Amino acid sequence: MGQHVQQWGIFEADFDGPAEGNPFLEVDFAATFAQGHRTVDVEGFYDGEGTYRVRFMPDEPGEWRFTTRSNRPALDAKTGSFVCTAPTGSNHGPVRVAEQFHFAYADGTHYSNIGTTCYGWVHQDPAIVEQTLATLAEAPFNKIRMCVFPKAYRWNENEPQFHAFEVLEEGPTRWDGRWDNSGDAQWRLDWERFVPGHFRNVETRVGQLRELGIEADLILFHPYDRWGYSKMPPEAEDRYLRYVCARLASYRNVWWSFANEWDLLRNKTVEDWERYARVVRRHDPYDHLRGIHQCHRLYDHGRPWVTHVSYQGGPDQVSRLRKDYGKPVVVDECCYEGDVPNGWGNISAAEMTHRFWLATCLGGYCGHGETYLHPQDILWWGKGGTLHGQSPARIAFLRRIVEQGSGGFEPCNVHGHMAVARGEREILIFTHNHQPRVLEAKLPEGRSYSVEVIDPWAMTVDKRPGQHSGDIAIEMPVQPYMVVRAVEIE
Amino acid sequence: MGQHVQQWGIFEADFDGPAEGNPFLEVDFAATFAQGHRTVDVEGFYDGEGTYRVRFMPDEPGEWRFTTRSNRPALDAKTGSFVCTAPTGSNHGPVRVAEQFHFAYADGTHYSNIGTTCYGWVHQDPAIVEQTLATLAEAPFNKIRMCVFPKAYRWNENEPQFHAFEVLEEGPTRWDGRWDNSGDAQWRLDWERFVPGHFRNVETRVGQLRELGIEADLILFHPYDRWGYSKMPPEAEDRYLRYVCARLASYRNVWWSFANEWDLLRNKTVEDWERYARVVRRHDPYDHLRGIHQCHRLYDHGRPWVTHVSYQGGPDQVSRLRKDYGKPVVVDECCYEGDVPNGWGNISAAEMTHRFWLATCLGGYCGHGETYLHPQDILWWGKGGTLHGQSPARIAFLRRIVEQGSGGFEPCNVHGHMAVARGEREILIFTHNHQPRVLEAKLPEGRSYSVEVIDPWAMTVDKRPGQHSGDIAIEMPVQPYMVVRAVEIE
Repeated sequence: MGQHVQQWGIFEADFDGPAEGNPFLEVDFAATFAQGHRTVDVEGFYDGEGTYRVRFMPDEPGEWRFTTRSNRPALDAKTGSFVCTAPTGSNHGPVRVAEQFHFAYADGTHYSNIGTTCYGWVHQDPAIVEQTLATLAEAPFNKIRMCVFPKAYRWNENEPQFHAFEVLEEGPTRWDGRWDNSGDAQWRLDWERFVPGHFRNVETRVGQLRELGIEADLILFHPYDRWGYSKMPPEAEDRYLRYVCARLASYRNVWWSFANEWDLLRNKTVEDWERYARVVRRHDPYDHLRGIHQCHRLYDHGRPWVTHVSYQGGPDQVSRLRKDYGKPVVVDECCYEGDVPNGWGNISAAEMTHRFWLATCLGGYCGHGETYLHPQDILWWGKGGTLHGQSPARIAFLRRIVEQGSGGFEPCNVHGHMAVARGEREILIFTHNHQPRVLEAKLPEGRSYSVEVIDPWAMTVDKRPGQHSGDIAIEMPVQPYMVVRAVEIE
Repeated sequence: MGQHVQQWGIFEADFDGPAEGNPFLEVDFAATFAQGHRTVDVEGFYDGEGTYRVRFMPDEPGEWRFTTRSNRPALDAKTGSFVCTAPTGSNHGPVRVAEQFHFAYADGTHYSNIGTTCYGWVHQDPAIVEQTLATLAEAPFNKIRMCVFPKAYRWNENEPQFHAFEVLEEGPTRWDGRWDNSGDAQWRLDWERFVPGHFRNVETRVGQLRELGIEADLILFHPYDRWGYSKMPPEAEDRYLRYVCARLASYRNVWWSFANEWDLLRNKTVEDWERYARVVRRHDPYDHLRGIHQCHRLYDHGRPWVTHVSYQGGPDQVSRLRKDYGKPVVVDECCYEGDVPNGWGNISAAEMTHRFWLATCLGGYCGHGETYLHPQDILWWGKGGTLHGQSPARIAFLRRIVEQGSGGFEPCNVHGHMAVARGEREILIFTHNHQPRVLEAKLPEGRSYSVEVIDPWAMTVDKRPGQHSGDIAIEMPVQPYMVVRAVEIE
């Protein structure tokens, strides 16, 4: 064969098979990939027009071989092989939980979650999608939350580029203000026939994100719906999850977000969510990160399948959530920078900046989003486009600082301040809404530190002269929301 | 007799009596005041040099008569009378709880608690005390928290002008950094002999506050002590409370704050505090307001003797405290505007301003304090003097606005905003850290309101044209911490 694929890249094989009948229901197609004595089973998928594909993300270098199996002879017992080569460039593999409360790529490189949210960006006009990608290429984010299904909401009133299932009967093509998923569907979709173009669009965008070094936190279910996606029959839900796994699990930058605001999907029970988790765990051989985001009521993040806490609310809750669940805490929705009338979407850039530092200095992670009113309703949070706010520059500044070191920041006691440390190598102290003229703190004895006073809004780093250890008293500008950073001198 | 005393003023009668022995222990002296069939018992007190006094605050106009009783003939069965006249000027009587969660003076005038804290101001050099009074005369505060006993703490290291008890043996005259009230006392005081001059000083200052229209929230016990006040024998504690009542209860502007940070007085039990409350209730015939302030652990504010919640912490807790206790919530300590290293004493003026509006717009009340470092350690919070911060002007602005109407602000639902109302006459909406470009809210139907957009920091009121009712959409400046005020047009 001679095909070469990078470790954590995607190997894909395609085959011609039956197009008649309903291939989505009638054709079983899977493959087993093997390296030495190790085997990995993956499902293939029907991509339309008689084409079947199987994808695989190798996690070890060397030769891999595969054999297909199917209930159709044209797809059964096909074999092949490829050579997995070392990863290059910015390919560090998928992100995993590390050090209990933090994240690292599979190659061990620290990953500091700096997220944003554009729920419906892939469902917009391609010109807007390209603009979003151009914006992301310059933005500080290394994760984006996005919906697999289209979204209906205020300022998200248009039809999507694609539907995920074939449309049997159209309903209203503009949003009428309702998204009560417990009522009757306004459209009629064929839950037995996927639209491959829809998923091809999603995976193309996920692949583009991967090239930008951005994790795709794929939201599998959400309640902002006027087409029926939020109330599919259970068999269709399971088939959908398997199809998504077959197509997308091989993208190393995929995370599974089972829901946005799971508790607003009132027709689904905890048993449903547990079933979805089982389906995804069964069909994602790579064990991607899994979370479930709430509106009011927290899901039980203690469940074994939940890898991290995906939280909507104030970063001041990070300490409690770390304690309650013993998992990484990502404040995926801390409100959006913007000016819409709704309270969740109109915090200031300064407040967004404070919240990022607050989450960081409590041992968690924060997510950004933006909701400035726009004449064409292109709000970043809903559709992408361009960023208008002032927090992304500050978030980029934060990211540059936290990426100067490696490892997770853990809460530490330096004399009663809000503070986190990476071992004894680096300490961050956040004054939050306090403004000491002199910041008194205690650094570890017997080590020497350089000390910087950081202004997260002005984006300045004021390095203080000398070496510091033990009890320190740092002269501060009398203003709140400052950071003191101590870095051990090697 | 012909003496005239205003309603809620002080009638005082003095008598010569024995000076030998220990009059504080040995002489019983009290009086019964009567108007018609109504009688009120009050204790008198020994004021030194053979002088005994009895004070009484009449609460009804007309003639009052009294008869004394004592175990000493010179003080027994003395009689007299006076005429109680109508109150004049700013005399509205003592403050009481009103409308469950709020306060009013005895004549029914609404009282909106706008407090400050100067723990040790009366114990300082008279020049500083006079300066404090001059500052208060121009400041926006209508309550001050202050300690009856002197205070020892960082930046409060000097000796007081007076001690409350005679000194038997002096200890160190500068604070050494310890105030652990559970250790040995560093001084030795005679718990059986009050120093009348100390209490005369306190009551002179309380009287001056009364003339300024300022309530005196007298802190009866506190832990910042190096002389022994925090660990008096129980009999001395009870005698002290009776003496304070005899001298000070007749000042209409007195509130009893049983403790500052009761939970740091680790040698006292809940039974002790309950006993103190019984003594004060028994000897204060006017039933002044009673509270007890905490550091970490809330006292059970549900106890019947606690008239209002005196809280240290964030005003965001107002809703919970109102719900838990069903009493007025006063955030007496929300941190101080200042720049000391300690977290409790270095919030910005803007943050202090936000906290006042936050407490108000949750249906509570907030207190101010100031801790800017000073070359002579004259920090407002500890010693008084002058104010250096920028929040008092903003608090004055808030006070002017809330005093344009009458009655307590109660939480109300106007479309999910943080909002309070006085019936349907007036509504305040606080954007807190949100910045809607358009504020959407719902005013009561069938009434007309004028609408103002208030900037609490810039101290501007932008009155919008026209009359408003029902659903409103107010164009807002895109900045956080704004207030929308709707006032019914008569």
